Amino acid sequence: MPLVRISVSSSTTPKQREAIAHSVYEAMRATIGIPEGDRFILVTPHGEGEMFIDPGFMGMRRCSSFMLVQIFLSKGRTIEQKQALYAQIAGKLHLAVGVSTEDVMTVLTENTPADWSFGNGEAQFVLNPPSWVKQSQEG
Amino acid sequence: MPLVRISVSSSTTPKQREAIAHSVYEAMRATIGIPEGDRFILVTPHGEGEMFIDPGFMGMRRCSSFMLVQIFLSKGRTIEQKQALYAQIAGKLHLAVGVSTEDVMTVLTENTPADWSFGNGEAQFVLNPPSWVKQSQEG
Amino acid sequence: MPLVRISVSSSTTPKQREAIAHSVYEAMRATIGIPEGDRFILVTPHGEGEMFIDPGFMGMRRCSSFMLVQIFLSKGRTIEQKQALYAQIAGKLHLAVGVSTEDVMTVLTENTPADWSFGNGEAQFVLNPPSWVKQSQEG
Repeated sequence: MPLVRISVSSSTTPKQREAIAHSVYEAMRATIGIPEGDRFILVTPHGEGEMFIDPGFMGMRRCSSFMLVQIFLSKGRTIEQKQALYAQIAGKLHLAVGVSTEDVMTVLTENTPADWSFGNGEAQFVLNPPSWVKQSQEG
Repeated sequence: MPLVRISVSSSTTPKQREAIAHSVYEAMRATIGIPEGDRFILVTPHGEGEMFIDPGFMGMRRCSSFMLVQIFLSKGRTIEQKQALYAQIAGKLHLAVGVSTEDVMTVLTENTPADWSFGNGEAQFVLNPPSWVKQSQEG
Repeated sequence: MPLVRISVSSSTTPKQREAIAHSVYEAMRATIGIPEGDRFILVTPHGEGEMFIDPGFMGMRRCSSFMLVQIFLSKGRTIEQKQALYAQIAGKLHLAVGVSTEDVMTVLTENTPADWSFGNGEAQFVLNPPSWVKQSQEG
């Protein structure tokens, strides 16, 4: 169910972009309990002069390899799960494409189960909710 | 008031993109009670190797014609309105450009009336709220 | 901490895009209390036929110079702060690149302090929260 938007430099190669998307998927699988195949990831390459990213904010040293991972997902993850997710995303991206973990930013935005239609014009989590939705559904 | 971001394959034509944007606008008009002219839609074409979309998750059969419709809107819609919205978006897109309804994903993210400025640097829903805002405004 | 996505016409120049990003940063500094260096801004140029923006909704007169400023930020700003933010963004963009304030739309989406990782795979606002987080943290 997460929808992921990844912003990278246009100097990344197609092979790197595939590795980046796969790493984020694997990090989500390992930490926030999404089912196999729950993969909806869009990568947007940004050309020069399109990313205005502070090089030092919060004590990091960022360079032109900076990557933003923005994830839209249903609420319900604990702070500990989110912390594990950030660590896994940065770690797996470093291993996959050599980016410094200081150059990986992750931002989450939460919604609710009724906010998702995966196809066929249906709200799958309303009609046929998985167990984690049944437990947490509020209205 | 909805802000809509539609992600499509770069193989779509300008005419198809216009039909896609119009279909989503008409679906919102028909189901979630937006006024005439409330049309703020951005279409982003994605080249090959930029969309990593699972072909089978939730029982769909997706292909390279996959489209993502992400809608940012004020909270207040019922689950039934959201279900109608998803059905209308998928149905109208199928009629307009022939895409399979299995290839249409819709995701909502809600905010509040104070989160919108439509121009002139003003928060129109705060200064001069429409009736649906007056009824639901919380703070 | 705000993450800013700015959508502009592809007819803008690199120099204009830089001035646009800087203006939005300065407007946030002046109104919503972000620290120096808190600058994470992505600009996406849209080609012809990719932006479907109503020319008159809410009494504005919009043209092809239309710009969308979408800001993701932690909750906690008052309505008055948001109003000041909208006014400053529109005013500064007008001064910087001559765009009509009627052509500037701003949309906010809020999340929580735990939803941010600025690098190193850490949730900085959880581990080492700034004072405004300590006061408002809920869970």
